[in-house]
Amino acid sequence: MQQYAVPIANLIDQLSKLPGIGRKTAQRLAFFILEMENLEAQKISEAILEAKEKIKLCSVCQNLTDIDPCILCQNANRDKSIICVVEGAKDIIAMERSREYKGEYHVLHGVISPMDNIGPNDIKVKELLNRLADGKVKEVILATNPTVEGEATALYISRLIKPLGVKVSRIAHGIPVGGDLEYFDEVTLSKAMENRREL
Amino acid sequence: MQQYAVPIANLIDQLSKLPGIGRKTAQRLAFFILEMENLEAQKISEAILEAKEKIKLCSVCQNLTDIDPCILCQNANRDKSIICVVEGAKDIIAMERSREYKGEYHVLHGVISPMDNIGPNDIKVKELLNRLADGKVKEVILATNPTVEGEATALYISRLIKPLGVKVSRIAHGIPVGGDLEYFDEVTLSKAMENRREL
Repeated sequence: MQQYAVPIANLIDQLSKLPGIGRKTAQRLAFFILEMENLEAQKISEAILEAKEKIKLCSVCQNLTDIDPCILCQNANRDKSIICVVEGAKDIIAMERSREYKGEYHVLHGVISPMDNIGPNDIKVKELLNRLADGKVKEVILATNPTVEGEATALYISRLIKPLGVKVSRIAHGIPVGGDLEYFDEVTLSKAMENRREL
Repeated sequence: MQQYAVPIANLIDQLSKLPGIGRKTAQRLAFFILEMENLEAQKISEAILEAKEKIKLCSVCQNLTDIDPCILCQNANRDKSIICVVEGAKDIIAMERSREYKGEYHVLHGVISPMDNIGPNDIKVKELLNRLADGKVKEVILATNPTVEGEATALYISRLIKPLGVKVSRIAHGIPVGGDLEYFDEVTLSKAMENRREL
């Protein structure tokens, strides 16, 4: 059976490390790259290196940024008294898309997950507590995902913050706008019932 | 609205050039890469450069290879009197998986497609004709894909080769093994009927 030449096999291996990219897709991508213009392939390779080199964590909110503090933390128009805590930097992008929220963010870079050996010290909890030290922050919104780990992390953080006298809230769970009742699981539905509002 | 930092936006742009990778997937891959160990990201970047640098076309069959001639052309056990013509290097991998075919290959690196401005001189047809010059090749199997362009390319090549006194054949079209009649289009079904064999 025909074996791939070593550099091709290696490229396939490396590409299959990416999320959602299986062997078959990695193979297709590898052959596409091999048939590409050299310059174009170089650009991809360099974009990876450049992003890794230039993008650091914001010293304030831990967002991924090329300037420090990041553009959001530098923005004087944003409400410094409220912090929205998210799991990853891409959650900020999603939040900002709603154009609703005008406060600050804090990126945890993960959630507490004992199964994966990720404890509170492996995510940016300490950095969050440091931001609350000067008493200027009045509310912390916990916007981790509604997964087991996300809920546990939110609970953990809320227990640390409440004694500091800061208001702690959790984003609402329920049926997404445009969603259809019959397609949601019972946990989502019971959350939606539990969190019902009087009209 | 939050804009991505330039190096992140650039990485997303570069990744979306890959086939089957839309903006959303590119964004997910970019953030995954940004959260990766530096060394691991470097390995991906280097694998792209190394593959582009080391992988060349085999001077005989035009397969992608890091040695010239390629491992298939060097193999003395393969039947030199028969050449299977395929569109891309990954088709060789697929063919070899069947473990049936023991002849040589020839990779066209594309198909004739006037819509995309790809003519016979843009694919490796001339190189195929050169291989037939010494009269040692007895049969050429055209294994381009059963698309409009693949069929046209097969027809074009067969017209060039027939006058040289070389047998030209086309791979069979029909229902794939394990396939279910009701799921195939009428063209495949009519091909399957047309190419029926007496039992």
